[in-house]
Amino acid sequence: MSREERRAAPAFGEREAVALFARHFGRAPAGVRVGIGDDAAVLESPRGRLVLTVDACVEGTHFERSWLELGDIGWKAFHAAASDLGAMGAKPHAALSALELPRRFDRSELTALVRGQAAAARALGCPIVGGNVARAERLALTTTLIGAAEKPLTRSGARAGDELWLVGEVGLAALGLRLLSGRISGRKRPPAALRRAGERALAAWRRPVALVGRGRALVGRASAAVDVSDGLAGDARHLAEASRVRVVIEAPRLSRALSPDLLALARAYDLAPLELALYGGEDYALVATGSTARRPRFARAIGRVERGQGAWLETDHDGLRPLGAGFDHFD
Amino acid sequence: MSREERRAAPAFGEREAVALFARHFGRAPAGVRVGIGDDAAVLESPRGRLVLTVDACVEGTHFERSWLELGDIGWKAFHAAASDLGAMGAKPHAALSALELPRRFDRSELTALVRGQAAAARALGCPIVGGNVARAERLALTTTLIGAAEKPLTRSGARAGDELWLVGEVGLAALGLRLLSGRISGRKRPPAALRRAGERALAAWRRPVALVGRGRALVGRASAAVDVSDGLAGDARHLAEASRVRVVIEAPRLSRALSPDLLALARAYDLAPLELALYGGEDYALVATGSTARRPRFARAIGRVERGQGAWLETDHDGLRPLGAGFDHFD
Repeated sequence: MSREERRAAPAFGEREAVALFARHFGRAPAGVRVGIGDDAAVLESPRGRLVLTVDACVEGTHFERSWLELGDIGWKAFHAAASDLGAMGAKPHAALSALELPRRFDRSELTALVRGQAAAARALGCPIVGGNVARAERLALTTTLIGAAEKPLTRSGARAGDELWLVGEVGLAALGLRLLSGRISGRKRPPAALRRAGERALAAWRRPVALVGRGRALVGRASAAVDVSDGLAGDARHLAEASRVRVVIEAPRLSRALSPDLLALARAYDLAPLELALYGGEDYALVATGSTARRPRFARAIGRVERGQGAWLETDHDGLRPLGAGFDHFD
Repeated sequence: MSREERRAAPAFGEREAVALFARHFGRAPAGVRVGIGDDAAVLESPRGRLVLTVDACVEGTHFERSWLELGDIGWKAFHAAASDLGAMGAKPHAALSALELPRRFDRSELTALVRGQAAAARALGCPIVGGNVARAERLALTTTLIGAAEKPLTRSGARAGDELWLVGEVGLAALGLRLLSGRISGRKRPPAALRRAGERALAAWRRPVALVGRGRALVGRASAAVDVSDGLAGDARHLAEASRVRVVIEAPRLSRALSPDLLALARAYDLAPLELALYGGEDYALVATGSTARRPRFARAIGRVERGQGAWLETDHDGLRPLGAGFDHFD
């Protein structure tokens, strides 16, 4: 979606839509432990605690066919859905794939798409056990995942005094998307010296990997978690709102947590790496909170949780300033 | 979709797509009791036997906005998905709703849509516990349902010697769609004397009711079941193929099972009621098989199961003839 399209204000935003769902679908009927508004729903069934999530990947909104191979689209749609289970600390059990296929989509195209989905399902140990196929004007993949988590991580457990943790990388996917969409000085390829870094950025956007194992490893350590699909700033704010706390991202610590590839590419293209990290979407990293003593090795502390509200950035020169919204596919 | 659009042969059909999924996604990995190809997937988890299904309702393919109120679209999409659980004899536990919303869709439209979904969820005792919202060019609703069934009914259990049972009505929804789409002699309204029958036909298409309770009541009685979403002929053939038997629909018995409203309207509009019953889609009735002794009161015997293959129609004057394919949203 172009910047211009995003600027044209929609009749309502994603947050408003979610609030509307919660109002009409009802909040937490009996047996529903976590309902609308978190990364996934948690269902208390006679059979135990199930975690359910669904995610859509729509041509023209989430991707253009010219930016991604069909196999990448299949892969990415699956991992984007799985990322929500990762954020809940759940173990994926099975998936359903609902495809909307344009009329001109042929068999070899379907095969390529499905191979990408199947590879993703294998990589995550989560078989696709059913689905649906329907004609539509544009390609869309809606993926449902079901998993199990005895102690699901929600967005609402952060407490003042916790650290803010980053698991995985942020910013690189947004840079990859800029390279693909030709939004960087008309050039689609990075300079020769940065070729490998550029390839990593492209792969970060095209073939993200949901941090499902790390999400599970956060259970018992983190007090709250959310996945970074809309950008660190926006998702940190979601966590702050759900937990009714203030989340402070400390710029120096975040900068130290950024990948050398991101820093090198940002320098080459004259971009601010911190902006990419804060407002770039689709990283599928995890943001969690917890006490220093419980921080796992794979998590980097990038800030803190305080009393208050919202997501804030603390820099050495400016002090604290509130962070704007992140990337929103829906707006 | 117009008759002309349907005639334009696609690169592949739904059956081929499903076969392709089964090949690439793998058949029945450990823990998957019923995989791709049945009405729903059955998952053997450490937590018991879960039944999962997903169904999409896409503007331009499954409906036109001019034929349905938004509340009806929400209702119908939910029941269409629930019907698959009914066919498995499963008890619905929870649902996820993934919506694709056009940019011009406003808040009051979203509210109307969601109210229809919420009413359907209440009617079926199956709360919507999560979902997703994405921008798209056209409206689409993808509904996932999860339920439980200790002894799920599949399509593959029919045996030679069984009766063929019809649960619910067939043909009326197809007639309702013809009324709505103006395909009946340019008139959209039935004659005054048939007004109530016409309203029932419209309601059958606009506000179908998934036979979830009756599906559960078939467990322990029926040997196989399928829901009639693509038309009786096509779905009987699906059951025959999965069970490796021949299914014979006996025209006189089917005719006696048709509703008086369907017969009266078909007469008034000079349509063949048996054609509507066999090839009209979206009835969301159930077709099951079982022994005469086990047939429940609410099921009507409309034929028999024999050795052989395919779905056949037996009439008094023509004897046996193979039935063509049913309505297919995908072709």
